[in-house]
Amino acid sequence: MKAHIKITLKPGVLDPQGKAIEHALGSLGFNGVDEVRQGKFIEVELAEMDEASARAAVEQMCEKLLANTVIENYAYELVA
Amino acid sequence: MKAHIKITLKPGVLDPQGKAIEHALGSLGFNGVDEVRQGKFIEVELAEMDEASARAAVEQMCEKLLANTVIENYAYELVA
Repeated sequence: MKAHIKITLKPGVLDPQGKAIEHALGSLGFNGVDEVRQGKFIEVELAEMDEASARAAVEQMCEKLLANTVIENYAYELVA
Repeated sequence: MKAHIKITLKPGVLDPQGKAIEHALGSLGFNGVDEVRQGKFIEVELAEMDEASARAAVEQMCEKLLANTVIENYAYELVA
């Protein structure tokens, strides 16, 4: 079972990397880009086949290592 | 309209950051983690309201700036 995890900065947290992308898109001629935020995307391949246990494990991974929950949100989906 | 873009390394491309996460998860006691790959997640807020034009713009952004298509794949979805 695979987990697809998205980690994004909470609203209000400064995102200089997103701002840099925004400006670069502007210089390349892409108008109408209002805001860019950059986060992380992590794919974890789990041996666990039970969905409930997989969910529990992924949440623990996010809380303990993958996301800094003071400034980041996480969301995940399980893919068979 | 918002675009959620996932940029992932192509299969076979070395991912030291993913490996580091994999080892860290192992040291934290998460067994049964077979592989970890890290990519990027980018949210772009577009002024464009037409779906076809938004798709075309996002694809151009990915090809020209956001993804290095030699070693990375991209996927996106539009969110109202």
